[in-house]
Amino acid sequence: MRKRERNLYLSNVAVEEALGIYFRQLEGILQNLPVEKVQVIEALGRVTAYPVFAKLSSPNHNAAAMDGIAVRAKVTFGASEANPKRLKRNLDFIYVDTGDPIKEPYDAVIMIEDVVEIDEETVEIIKAASPWQDIRPIGEDIVAHEMIVPARHTLRPVDIGALLSGGITEIEVYKKPRVGIMPTGSEIIEPGEKMEEGKIIESNSRVFEGLVKEYGGEPNRYSPVDDDYDLLQERLTAAVEENDIIIINAGSSSGTEDYTVKLIREMGEVLIHGIAVRPGKPAILGIIKEKPVIGIPGYPVSAYFVFETFAKPLIRKYVGQEIPPRPKIEAVVSKRIVSSLKHKEYVRVKLGMVGNKLIATPLNRGAGATMSLVRADGVLIIPQNSEGVEAGERVSVELLKDMEEIRNTIVSIGSHDLILDIIGNLMHRQPGNYHLSSAHAGSLGGIMALKRGEAHMAPVHLLDEMTGEYNVPFLRRYLPDMEVALIKGVKRIQGFIIPKGNPKNIKGFEDLVREDIQFVNRQRGAGTRMLTDYELKRRGIDVARIWGYEREMTTHMAVAAAVASGSADAGVGVLSAAKALDLDFIPIGDEDYDFAVPMQYLKEEMIEIFIKVLQSQEFKEILEEMGGYKLEHTGEIALVRRG
Amino acid sequence: MRKRERNLYLSNVAVEEALGIYFRQLEGILQNLPVEKVQVIEALGRVTAYPVFAKLSSPNHNAAAMDGIAVRAKVTFGASEANPKRLKRNLDFIYVDTGDPIKEPYDAVIMIEDVVEIDEETVEIIKAASPWQDIRPIGEDIVAHEMIVPARHTLRPVDIGALLSGGITEIEVYKKPRVGIMPTGSEIIEPGEKMEEGKIIESNSRVFEGLVKEYGGEPNRYSPVDDDYDLLQERLTAAVEENDIIIINAGSSSGTEDYTVKLIREMGEVLIHGIAVRPGKPAILGIIKEKPVIGIPGYPVSAYFVFETFAKPLIRKYVGQEIPPRPKIEAVVSKRIVSSLKHKEYVRVKLGMVGNKLIATPLNRGAGATMSLVRADGVLIIPQNSEGVEAGERVSVELLKDMEEIRNTIVSIGSHDLILDIIGNLMHRQPGNYHLSSAHAGSLGGIMALKRGEAHMAPVHLLDEMTGEYNVPFLRRYLPDMEVALIKGVKRIQGFIIPKGNPKNIKGFEDLVREDIQFVNRQRGAGTRMLTDYELKRRGIDVARIWGYEREMTTHMAVAAAVASGSADAGVGVLSAAKALDLDFIPIGDEDYDFAVPMQYLKEEMIEIFIKVLQSQEFKEILEEMGGYKLEHTGEIALVRRG
Repeated sequence: MRKRERNLYLSNVAVEEALGIYFRQLEGILQNLPVEKVQVIEALGRVTAYPVFAKLSSPNHNAAAMDGIAVRAKVTFGASEANPKRLKRNLDFIYVDTGDPIKEPYDAVIMIEDVVEIDEETVEIIKAASPWQDIRPIGEDIVAHEMIVPARHTLRPVDIGALLSGGITEIEVYKKPRVGIMPTGSEIIEPGEKMEEGKIIESNSRVFEGLVKEYGGEPNRYSPVDDDYDLLQERLTAAVEENDIIIINAGSSSGTEDYTVKLIREMGEVLIHGIAVRPGKPAILGIIKEKPVIGIPGYPVSAYFVFETFAKPLIRKYVGQEIPPRPKIEAVVSKRIVSSLKHKEYVRVKLGMVGNKLIATPLNRGAGATMSLVRADGVLIIPQNSEGVEAGERVSVELLKDMEEIRNTIVSIGSHDLILDIIGNLMHRQPGNYHLSSAHAGSLGGIMALKRGEAHMAPVHLLDEMTGEYNVPFLRRYLPDMEVALIKGVKRIQGFIIPKGNPKNIKGFEDLVREDIQFVNRQRGAGTRMLTDYELKRRGIDVARIWGYEREMTTHMAVAAAVASGSADAGVGVLSAAKALDLDFIPIGDEDYDFAVPMQYLKEEMIEIFIKVLQSQEFKEILEEMGGYKLEHTGEIALVRRG
Repeated sequence: MRKRERNLYLSNVAVEEALGIYFRQLEGILQNLPVEKVQVIEALGRVTAYPVFAKLSSPNHNAAAMDGIAVRAKVTFGASEANPKRLKRNLDFIYVDTGDPIKEPYDAVIMIEDVVEIDEETVEIIKAASPWQDIRPIGEDIVAHEMIVPARHTLRPVDIGALLSGGITEIEVYKKPRVGIMPTGSEIIEPGEKMEEGKIIESNSRVFEGLVKEYGGEPNRYSPVDDDYDLLQERLTAAVEENDIIIINAGSSSGTEDYTVKLIREMGEVLIHGIAVRPGKPAILGIIKEKPVIGIPGYPVSAYFVFETFAKPLIRKYVGQEIPPRPKIEAVVSKRIVSSLKHKEYVRVKLGMVGNKLIATPLNRGAGATMSLVRADGVLIIPQNSEGVEAGERVSVELLKDMEEIRNTIVSIGSHDLILDIIGNLMHRQPGNYHLSSAHAGSLGGIMALKRGEAHMAPVHLLDEMTGEYNVPFLRRYLPDMEVALIKGVKRIQGFIIPKGNPKNIKGFEDLVREDIQFVNRQRGAGTRMLTDYELKRRGIDVARIWGYEREMTTHMAVAAAVASGSADAGVGVLSAAKALDLDFIPIGDEDYDFAVPMQYLKEEMIEIFIKVLQSQEFKEILEEMGGYKLEHTGEIALVRRG
């Protein structure tokens, strides 16, 4: 029996332990970092290897600190308003501009505003000058031989200025480590290449390039290498020659074609394979010919965190710097997060300041959720040996964005619609620099978030089965003690999202029970789900008979994507989602998609800007172009009084 | 009578008003910012001009989320430990690696760990698969047509990754404004050129280059232009053609050769000349051919603040960004700062966390004090219409450094010595990333700072006239209620600093009263001043007879610099200062230069590292090479008990 070869056995070493082992092993290199000479005028952002002492003083001569006249102080003694003194040019004084050298016999400057010009050769003064007044003495700013910057200092523009003023033109800095980035995998294609099924656009290496630059290294990206052992070996051999640090992307897991660990083991040493962290577990820390070689897993979020955890401190050490810890802030978690005792976990969160509470809402935790990195305001670290955090718990979050930006952000939790992106974008063009952050929790989820004081706004579209009225009954029912306003949004067309051409000839809800129809549903609490259930109930259809009823998606676009990929034959959603993926659409009816806002936030400037955008001509035009929406009473405010 | 032509009349417009006037005038340009297409892989740090929507979904196919086998879920139903199911390869299952596409008829993945391989063609499972388990559906990460990044977003590495994954290869970003930087002045020389009297090394333009880059513009520096009206006009005409924003450095004041304002007025329009800010008053805001032209004064600190105040927001607007306000923090001012009602003032401060108080100590406020920018941890802004702040007052400080770094800094206030720089530098090489910040206030000033709880440490060298003992008596006298330790430092040789060759034949204190001798003194409270006064008193010399006795410098190096420049014939100071400027030295005697530290800080890790450095072999070797010091009991700790 031939067994398929797999590296099934990953260890589960704690992050800190792995860092300790790896950096101890690299100590020899890290204590003898290469240094190079560069021109000071090109040294911005570089890190000094040694302290730098001034060669020249600045100013390098006694200099006039003002425009005026240089005089001998003794000659001016006794001058007063009652007894002005006249001075002769080139005998008693000379004219000087700021910065001009002051030399013997002159030892004071009188500013021009205090000088009365009598004729071309004569001036009059009415106040004596004290010796050395308004003269910048030699070395006032920088004295030769004083230290301008210490070692291990990252040079800023002002440092460059001071170094040049101190007569320094060349400077010794740590050499930028050359970081070889080797994307591998037969399934990857380069950006812009034709997309075919089963292919993935290679993007991790481009993220690494950017991060290497930001941390002070020099990225050296190679073309992607196919999953071919001999080829990989040849390329890795070259990369080890050509770089200081080598990053191999993907092939670090335990799949059949994951050669990386085998390669590193054969060519050098694998110190760690498998780290107690999520995302990022299959990382490899190795050394080949005394050079660090890091195997980074392929999922983009794993790739990012493994880079940040291991490659970043390594690059920073090469340029003589420790990593300053990211600024941290205390926040309240809006949802329960369950984590495993087995690993440390990095949870990306959106942050929002609601009232005086900073709320952290976890984003998609998947290792492949690139967009969770794009959208994250911070990272919540759940330590190994913790089972997670409860909703409402206070946690410490590493900030990825500026607190000012977070404070200027409307936290919207509730039903998702594409128009939220459009509104957010239009808000950016308004004064005040306000943002809209939207988390998708369904309409009811949004109302619950308002109840817990965790959102400024909940987008809702909830149909009351009894009255046929939208939204207001639900706000009365679920927020009985809260004064809340409903900002009228849009009328939205809901319908079946089906493949182009309707190949299975779906006409309505009755078709969903057919054996050949696979449905895709929305999550409980979503307005669309409630509409679906309402329509099914009305027709007396047993949901147990619908194939795929239990498959839940959290956005319209995810439903559309399931249909587009052929994994479902129908779902319920909005026209814009169907149009976006070029699918067909069978309308079911209009619904009211509105925004619930507690009264206390209604007068905040960012909410006012939000309303202004809703009412704008530009917003109207964009929606008309998109189709699927009607604007009626948009931007009007209805107060919700108790039932 | 021919009058020398001067621009005597500067206005005094408030900063905010000036910004308002200028940006209103530039509104036309700022609302039609040029946009360019760039490759996404080269777009790091660029700012999006429009929102960017995904072209492709990611993943672009349903994909295996694990290594394992793809199956039809229905076929697995009923499998259990009691009743395992056998599956046939290529009929019931296929092997898949993470990321492989999952296509009809397969609709679930079972991870390899849950699969028992029977032979090459057969596997056994003991658990049913649910439909769509361990499959990443198409669009799970990014759905085609969803917004990846909004407009006016600065692209980070993770954004680049998401854009590429979303099928975007080109992107429209705001064009980097080309910023022409024109240094002017007949007195300036380029770095590396031979220094001659009256010359100044041109460094401002290099600071501007760095700042322009940091803020997202493209610097375009010109060679320095002499103060020649026609030449300046020719060069400015070209610069206006070639750039989006033009900066003319110096020539913005009211001196005879300050042509800038005249030039801008003739070629375009001067909107503001003279701003109520210090440093930076003579700034010019002008427009030529619809392009902003900013005249920036020559003093480096003025130049920096005028750039930050006017050029920075302008550059940021060109790239579609507002400036986020600098992070601010509350601190206690350690010294009174008097400021004028007439202008806003930017005071550079050192910050230090002493106990639980954040202390702000003002640095040199001169417009020429480049080193105050290099050393600053923050900027304290004193508003126009304020007369300044009192010692002990709580103020808000804009941070220039990371708070973590500030927390890890020993705040040393007291007598200055070159060895402080050396110790600080050696501390950097120790673990823990600790810093030493030293403010020069003289020995007594340092003791007073300890008393007020504003420093961790005071370097002192105070001779008790009665006992001949150093330092301890003063700590007993001035800190009677404080438990304080004295860390023994070095024996330091004090003496006369005199010009090379001793041209005036100075032999001792008696010579200081000679008519041809100009003395330079240290400030009151400095140990060296007390030594000087002690020796003069002992000899019965009347200080009123010493020319220059009232001219006070605050450091040894400043005294040496005065002697080196010929503005003084003698001063008292340490050997190292004399050697640094190649001057002669007549020893007076040794003194004890020690470090007073309140007991409560003695056990802090950063103080322990400080002591470790004092005791190190490396420190000893450096001091031996410098000369002028003896090491006796260095690093030992003496407790000071009440007398």
